[in-house]
Amino acid sequence: MSDICRDKLDDSQRETLVKPLLEKGWTVTPNRDALYKEFLFKNFNQAFGFMTQISLLAEKYDHHPEWFNVYNKVQITLSTHTCNGISELDTKMASFAESISKKN
Amino acid sequence: MSDICRDKLDDSQRETLVKPLLEKGWTVTPNRDALYKEFLFKNFNQAFGFMTQISLLAEKYDHHPEWFNVYNKVQITLSTHTCNGISELDTKMASFAESISKKN
Amino acid sequence: MSDICRDKLDDSQRETLVKPLLEKGWTVTPNRDALYKEFLFKNFNQAFGFMTQISLLAEKYDHHPEWFNVYNKVQITLSTHTCNGISELDTKMASFAESISKKN
Amino acid sequence: MSDICRDKLDDSQRETLVKPLLEKGWTVTPNRDALYKEFLFKNFNQAFGFMTQISLLAEKYDHHPEWFNVYNKVQITLSTHTCNGISELDTKMASFAESISKKN
Repeated sequence: MSDICRDKLDDSQRETLVKPLLEKGWTVTPNRDALYKEFLFKNFNQAFGFMTQISLLAEKYDHHPEWFNVYNKVQITLSTHTCNGISELDTKMASFAESISKKN
Repeated sequence: MSDICRDKLDDSQRETLVKPLLEKGWTVTPNRDALYKEFLFKNFNQAFGFMTQISLLAEKYDHHPEWFNVYNKVQITLSTHTCNGISELDTKMASFAESISKKN
Repeated sequence: MSDICRDKLDDSQRETLVKPLLEKGWTVTPNRDALYKEFLFKNFNQAFGFMTQISLLAEKYDHHPEWFNVYNKVQITLSTHTCNGISELDTKMASFAESISKKN
Repeated sequence: MSDICRDKLDDSQRETLVKPLLEKGWTVTPNRDALYKEFLFKNFNQAFGFMTQISLLAEKYDHHPEWFNVYNKVQITLSTHTCNGISELDTKMASFAESISKKN
């Protein structure tokens, strides 16, 4: 399990860690404190390759996304149960998703 | 691409192909002609192993599920765009999901 | 199953289909008519993401690689059993591997 | 990263942890202190589903197999670099492989 912090982000951390994600198309969901983004790939092959890489990180972190997929579309929601909101772990996972989504 | 039929099932086929799935916990969704089931696994490892095996079949058939996952839960919806309903392909994929879900 | 040709490539096809792969680091193995390349990634996450995308194509084509992996290293050998040598299918799969290996 | 021990097993641990694996078809390789087994599945779908589940555990443990695959065959070698031999981590991974290989 990762030792990345699972505490809810404070305002200063949101400025540093969440703001850069908002600039890349992530949103904070209106009804709960969670990060959300929809990724569109060229096809299912790319979408599922992306999901596999995130799955491997999820097991490493012991922190799992809520996600929906159909064909080339992947919708990801990230939040941390133990703090009932966005933690550093969610921003790490969102940044990773961001970095590998550009690759194809 | 598979040559399994993508036409909408008629009543006789529903008796043969859909009824056995209903007995195993699949439902026809109320708002559209699609097969649906929620699978619960022991953990994420099993859930994503299951999703990977279905993904490989999806590419073989060129027929892709709509699915949601969080941790040990996988919710699958199957329908065929070209016929706007349930085809033989959906029942094949549901039967496959059923067969591999029992394994762990 | 794919309808891409599984016949052994003739000399003219080797000029068109194999030569561009040799320029990208693929080799024809000395002891049998097969394409070979070793890929090095940043880590296991990238290596296995790569393998998953190739696996999805392998099932689509019904044509499977021989491969060895340890951590960030993937060694792939491609040849076609039915023609006992390199077919168009192998060059398609090698080109795909090449295209997705650059992404990270 | 897992806190399962990466030290080389002593004779007493080999009796407890390795012997049950030998009874299930694992061998200690002749030329180095490593666990080895060849798994045969029904097809590639099952073989790669198996590999995906092991990959997820490998990232969780930060401990990766050496493996070869072609179609339904998976050959796995497990050893620990830091102790230059078989550690508890290898026996955990072998036991996991064993448990999921029976499922289909």
